[in-house]
Amino acid sequence: MHRFFVPAGAVDGERGRVTGEQARQIAAVLRLGAGERVVLVHDGEEVEIALEHVARTEAWGRVTGRRSSAAEPRIALTLGLPLLRGDHSEAALAAAVQLGASRIVPFSSARSVVRELPSARRGRWERIARESAEVARRGRVPEIGPAVGWRELIQAVARPVLVAWEEARSPLLRDALPAVDGLSIVVGPEGGLARDEVDLALGGGAAIVSLGRRVLRAEVAVVAAVAQIMGTLDR
Amino acid sequence: MHRFFVPAGAVDGERGRVTGEQARQIAAVLRLGAGERVVLVHDGEEVEIALEHVARTEAWGRVTGRRSSAAEPRIALTLGLPLLRGDHSEAALAAAVQLGASRIVPFSSARSVVRELPSARRGRWERIARESAEVARRGRVPEIGPAVGWRELIQAVARPVLVAWEEARSPLLRDALPAVDGLSIVVGPEGGLARDEVDLALGGGAAIVSLGRRVLRAEVAVVAAVAQIMGTLDR
Repeated sequence: MHRFFVPAGAVDGERGRVTGEQARQIAAVLRLGAGERVVLVHDGEEVEIALEHVARTEAWGRVTGRRSSAAEPRIALTLGLPLLRGDHSEAALAAAVQLGASRIVPFSSARSVVRELPSARRGRWERIARESAEVARRGRVPEIGPAVGWRELIQAVARPVLVAWEEARSPLLRDALPAVDGLSIVVGPEGGLARDEVDLALGGGAAIVSLGRRVLRAEVAVVAAVAQIMGTLDR
Repeated sequence: MHRFFVPAGAVDGERGRVTGEQARQIAAVLRLGAGERVVLVHDGEEVEIALEHVARTEAWGRVTGRRSSAAEPRIALTLGLPLLRGDHSEAALAAAVQLGASRIVPFSSARSVVRELPSARRGRWERIARESAEVARRGRVPEIGPAVGWRELIQAVARPVLVAWEEARSPLLRDALPAVDGLSIVVGPEGGLARDEVDLALGGGAAIVSLGRRVLRAEVAVVAAVAQIMGTLDR
């Protein structure tokens, strides 16, 4: 059954309604008609509706079932995602959303080569987040926060905060994971994190962790960290 | 200090020697001279040499130190890597080598779109494996086996064999990891694995595992699986 991420208010009591591009897709691409069913997904809930009216600008129907998304993780993971050259941030973003990250905060730090997230690139990130959430059949599209600098990042992300630092040898991420239902993980940019950035993070209450004895490119470190966290905490 | 992966025989007793492209790099790119040191890496060992003779075709010197690579994992992990469209196999390969896979076996199966590994693409894989081993400062370059079909793959890879199947809900990979010093992990191609392929794997002694409740693209599944295995077993 086709799934659509919808905004708040798309399901109102016993009716569900989509407009714009989603209505066009139902009417013109999928060519669904009255009586056929689609699933509207919002905030971790999947609402099945039986279509009653289908047009290119609007489609609606009555609610025939509701369930919680089975694919949403049991922990809320915020990812501090470095702005990287090329399409490395985008590849890491797609993987992190498939693996279950709840919120993404783009950042640049002292050694970052890329320091801005222009609106065109942000639009691309939002599309990737939505598509990756669809691939993974998640119950919500992770939010992408404003791009920030290092100090703001450490202040802004949800506690507890783990920072993966390539120069740390211990503790391993896996051994440092607290039994919580929400946390943040931060991975540095291409050139790594500077000592004073690590000190600032420590001063802000973050814990420093290691991803192991091998040097990882930033985009690989992001995916490995999110995979290990979900493998351990999303039981 | 600059590191070079060298073939067997490059270090003979108290002398180390490089030729070809590596000699050219030492002489013409790095412009190193007698007395300077480089590290020759082979089969998990790092041998430091003090250069005595440098030319564009050959450079050699005497051994001044030897140590085991600190970055080689404590487990030998064979990865059954599906041939994927675009450069998805290449991205997964780079990540898997950085994360510590020891041997890569390319394969195609029933739902694979790509079925061959032409020699030009194999050459690219070999370069990626070497570069990724350099990035991670590993002690050896993982070997890339011949491309095989599903039946051969299951027969050929080291035991025990875990197969990540998107339709399995349990056990989770992490809970299924045996305390061994060598194992194989196999992840299916874009379209997933067919039921009869899973049955063939089970008949061949493989165990089926889940990577969790979210659907992952093949290249993300590969990286997540290798990251979780290394995070758990490479202590």
